Amino acid sequence: MKPYRELTKEELVQLKTELETKYKEAQAKGLHLDMSRGKPSADQLDLSMPMLDVLNSQSDLKDATGLDCRNYGVLDGLKEAKELLAGMTGVSADNVIVYGNASLNIMYDTVARAMMHGILGHTPWCKLDKVKFLCPVPGYDRHFAITESFGIEMINIPMTVTGPDMDRVEELVNNDPAVKGIWCVPKYSNPQGITYSDETVRRFANLKPAAEDFRIFWDNAYCVHHLYDDRQDEIPEILSECAKAGNPDMVFEFCSTSKISFPGSGISCIATSENNIKDIKKQMTIQTIGHDKLNQLRHVRFFKDIDGIKAHMRKHAVILRPKFEAVLDTLDRELGGLEIGTWVRPNGGYFISFEAMEGCAKAIVAKCKEAGVVMTGAGATYPYHNDPKDSNIRIAPSFPTTEDLAAAADLFVLCVKLVSVEKLLETK
Amino acid sequence: MKPYRELTKEELVQLKTELETKYKEAQAKGLHLDMSRGKPSADQLDLSMPMLDVLNSQSDLKDATGLDCRNYGVLDGLKEAKELLAGMTGVSADNVIVYGNASLNIMYDTVARAMMHGILGHTPWCKLDKVKFLCPVPGYDRHFAITESFGIEMINIPMTVTGPDMDRVEELVNNDPAVKGIWCVPKYSNPQGITYSDETVRRFANLKPAAEDFRIFWDNAYCVHHLYDDRQDEIPEILSECAKAGNPDMVFEFCSTSKISFPGSGISCIATSENNIKDIKKQMTIQTIGHDKLNQLRHVRFFKDIDGIKAHMRKHAVILRPKFEAVLDTLDRELGGLEIGTWVRPNGGYFISFEAMEGCAKAIVAKCKEAGVVMTGAGATYPYHNDPKDSNIRIAPSFPTTEDLAAAADLFVLCVKLVSVEKLLETK
Repeated sequence: MKPYRELTKEELVQLKTELETKYKEAQAKGLHLDMSRGKPSADQLDLSMPMLDVLNSQSDLKDATGLDCRNYGVLDGLKEAKELLAGMTGVSADNVIVYGNASLNIMYDTVARAMMHGILGHTPWCKLDKVKFLCPVPGYDRHFAITESFGIEMINIPMTVTGPDMDRVEELVNNDPAVKGIWCVPKYSNPQGITYSDETVRRFANLKPAAEDFRIFWDNAYCVHHLYDDRQDEIPEILSECAKAGNPDMVFEFCSTSKISFPGSGISCIATSENNIKDIKKQMTIQTIGHDKLNQLRHVRFFKDIDGIKAHMRKHAVILRPKFEAVLDTLDRELGGLEIGTWVRPNGGYFISFEAMEGCAKAIVAKCKEAGVVMTGAGATYPYHNDPKDSNIRIAPSFPTTEDLAAAADLFVLCVKLVSVEKLLETK
Repeated sequence: MKPYRELTKEELVQLKTELETKYKEAQAKGLHLDMSRGKPSADQLDLSMPMLDVLNSQSDLKDATGLDCRNYGVLDGLKEAKELLAGMTGVSADNVIVYGNASLNIMYDTVARAMMHGILGHTPWCKLDKVKFLCPVPGYDRHFAITESFGIEMINIPMTVTGPDMDRVEELVNNDPAVKGIWCVPKYSNPQGITYSDETVRRFANLKPAAEDFRIFWDNAYCVHHLYDDRQDEIPEILSECAKAGNPDMVFEFCSTSKISFPGSGISCIATSENNIKDIKKQMTIQTIGHDKLNQLRHVRFFKDIDGIKAHMRKHAVILRPKFEAVLDTLDRELGGLEIGTWVRPNGGYFISFEAMEGCAKAIVAKCKEAGVVMTGAGATYPYHNDPKDSNIRIAPSFPTTEDLAAAADLFVLCVKLVSVEKLLETK
């Protein structure tokens, strides 16, 4: 296909007329499709239904130590639940605190604790004139919402195919003591599906932060969320890399079973150094007596260990793979060579990221909506909902059926073409 | 029995010798008993085992609106879960936000939110020079731990048989704008088992706080935790009382199923005005996508409604009643008339409170411990662990067997007698 920018004004005008006709036809179909959030489909949730039989009225509800999991207690989680979650990220169970149903809640509480109580004896962030966080972009909207809600200044860091631009990260972290954190999704990043290279991870571990209480918020949300058996991304284990580099306390890692068992009814954890764990527990013991141990036991008995989780995730992949491919194949087929957008073919995760021509993202999302297909709001992948180039669109292919997805993807590429043609005509 | 204070020095010395002999005999038994925490016993937990069969792999996991409870969403809880918890406190379901597994966590988060973000647009408490909370004493140690952890100054308010000393409460709340809150357990208070009188509740509702963001933290932890069928304490519903008095936003009420179903695996809620709910949700939507809806569904389908909860609580009462009576009967029989301590016979709740002679509580608890019976640490029922008279001891009779309790209670009264005799001898 010929790149659109090489078309003459007359060719573009004619193309626009054709595309508008197609768009009207599409609108007439009265679609009602949602590609906005990374929600598992009902098929995927069905995979975990047997988990609900694991604990019943006849079950022995004692953990490995003989503790009655039905009663109060155990602030930091059952040993076996720690081991299960530790296996997902490759850390030691001693580095894990098991929390409740969502890692988002842990991340919020971790920032809130730093604000109110400080980290390892350092000044609480709320007492400082300025606190800054680095935000690789495009990124996860709910991360940015947390830091925004605490009045933390967010600084965009461009993503590259190997992760955040580490020159920029090093420059800021190593020189500005107001930089207290960075949001990272190191594997199958949200939304691009990019996995940090080994070098990127090691450069993270070897940062020399100007602020002693600088922390990497390492949201390993998609650590076992591969789409293929033969193409699986892996990253070096960050806690041990940091320890090796003399920065043992520099990372808070987060993960959960939200997209493994049931979103909202899973278990989650923070993994971090012994020092940080002691510091966290001091506050945590005031906040709670302990999280839901029966649900921890339910997960442990259903999955047994990391191999059980991996086997389960292969079943998820069987459902997810055709959906990703339906969208990606449509993008390749319909937009390949037109030079009106770029995208990455991820090996895992929950999203496809589409980079439209500058100034087109909002218009594309609006056009999709007018024809009945809801996308994540343009700008959502940037701090303050402000995508300076107005070009990034997050596509979430997991929830609709493959058939619906194909229809939604067809509409999406149509809208991309139409908006791009309109954009190009502006300057002809 | 003759009051100890009327005994002569010689009589006291002889009594001391006799008691010391008995104490040595008791020590020789090598007891290992725990009356320190308000934990349900295994028998009580067994009552809720059928709840684990309610959801299984064959269940329809949609709520009344058809929503798939296995997936993300529903920030403030399922409608039917709101109704269940609303029924416990007599409020409308519209006034309820359902949270996770523990009301303690909601209380912590509620104070934390006021500290960081302020209440209804008022200055965040962390920006103020001084924030004070009123603490009816004796009270619940974990309440005091929350306010202490945020550096909030705590002021003791004496409890009376009708609730906190309301003259003192009114004087402080209505005149000092630094007073931002008060901790209350209005029904079967922890530890005294006192239920606030209707007049006390109405005086609360009619406060005229100097601070517009003053809030009553109304921890209705024992709202359905009666010990008897024919002696059940009730209190006026505080939200509507406050609304009537022109203070619709003045209360945060908390309750949970922790001591109804499984502690740590229950559901919990905050009940408050529409304005406060809007304010809370603004922050909550940053903190979480939603709490465990499957566990909400499990509770709703097991209990069905407030009548189901009441029927279930009668089964708890059958188990708890003899334990309370074993302790209370021992206190009556062994200490009645000696004038070395006072106690109240509660109609519900989880504790018995013993008021020893001034300066004796720590010594009694220590003596118990040396003979193998662990009590809640003396002082724990006061802010900063400081009981100015060193006289209050909290007894938690729920966890041990009735047989063990009888042995523990025997030892307790022996220690009370011995320490009291020693105290009286100091001044003879």
